[in-house]
Amino acid sequence: MIKYSNGQNFKEKEQKSRKSSVKTANFSYGNRGMSLEDDINISNDYYRRNGLCLVTKRPTPINVVSVDYSKGAIITNAYFEKQSTTDYNGVYKGRYIDFEAKSTIKTTSFPLANISKHQIEHLKNVLFHGGIAFFIIEFAKLNQVFLLDASYVINFFEKEQRKSIPYSKIVENGFEVKKGYAPRLNYLEVIDKIYVKT
Amino acid sequence: MIKYSNGQNFKEKEQKSRKSSVKTANFSYGNRGMSLEDDINISNDYYRRNGLCLVTKRPTPINVVSVDYSKGAIITNAYFEKQSTTDYNGVYKGRYIDFEAKSTIKTTSFPLANISKHQIEHLKNVLFHGGIAFFIIEFAKLNQVFLLDASYVINFFEKEQRKSIPYSKIVENGFEVKKGYAPRLNYLEVIDKIYVKT
Repeated sequence: MIKYSNGQNFKEKEQKSRKSSVKTANFSYGNRGMSLEDDINISNDYYRRNGLCLVTKRPTPINVVSVDYSKGAIITNAYFEKQSTTDYNGVYKGRYIDFEAKSTIKTTSFPLANISKHQIEHLKNVLFHGGIAFFIIEFAKLNQVFLLDASYVINFFEKEQRKSIPYSKIVENGFEVKKGYAPRLNYLEVIDKIYVKT
Repeated sequence: MIKYSNGQNFKEKEQKSRKSSVKTANFSYGNRGMSLEDDINISNDYYRRNGLCLVTKRPTPINVVSVDYSKGAIITNAYFEKQSTTDYNGVYKGRYIDFEAKSTIKTTSFPLANISKHQIEHLKNVLFHGGIAFFIIEFAKLNQVFLLDASYVINFFEKEQRKSIPYSKIVENGFEVKKGYAPRLNYLEVIDKIYVKT
């Protein structure tokens, strides 16, 4: 799930934007006009259709409390659970890839507040088992997207006092992901460069 | 999602078992006392804790229609979507693994009715990109579990007239998965034997 680095999450954002406390709209939780997520999903579709790699988005985990079967199976009470893994995983040239995508409106640093310990543990496990693990980080106001290896973020998360990674460090240690028409975000080009050297 | 080979799905099963049409219980959709799924989840926990492999279950996709924010974020209207991929994927020795788990109460064949075309397409894609793809098939009444390579099932699905794979074919082409205490279902042993020869 992509959250907002300024502390606003989906819930707060939605609450502010409407008067009624009950939202009724035909949306799926995974598609809320968040451009980074959209860009990645569309890029993944492009990669899949062109036989380049297969990356899927994990559905948002939802805990279902009650279901009404009188009109089919309508869920009438449920709540969102925190994603304990990451948003995306898949396969490229036989190898396992796993990543989390985050967008920030900050321009000088990437806050770690929305990365959970569970996600850090998950990514450590991925690396331990030989998978490719990284973050895709968008600086929305700068119109820049970077791919940053998970090991760098894990190390920063665990060893540094700072609660955010400076932009300069991301430029230095990450790789900028080119934006285009198709794919919108060519992160596979970066994977080729740094992980799957041919 | 594990479905029932006799055509009963979760919904029908639940409908038959209760008088009221509205179900209210503290359950998660992924954990409904289905022993094969439980066995796999517990085995995956065992593998993860012991650093053997990392396999996670994809959450059931749910389409959220409305959310009530007056008491936190309570989903008040939503419905289950069909899983277009598979239940499980993960990483083992750097390689991508992906599988679907199905249980049947039949004793002479495994019905293909609950495998969707989307899942077949997904597994074909996994194989195309060099991933390890298979089915874990339980014959519940026989107390037997088999691992069957996805290519066999895909071929059967696409080329055979029959709507079910005979038990004898599964015995012949699959590999029995040993049951034990920890892990409950040692499917990694089979992966080692047939995919990751060392």
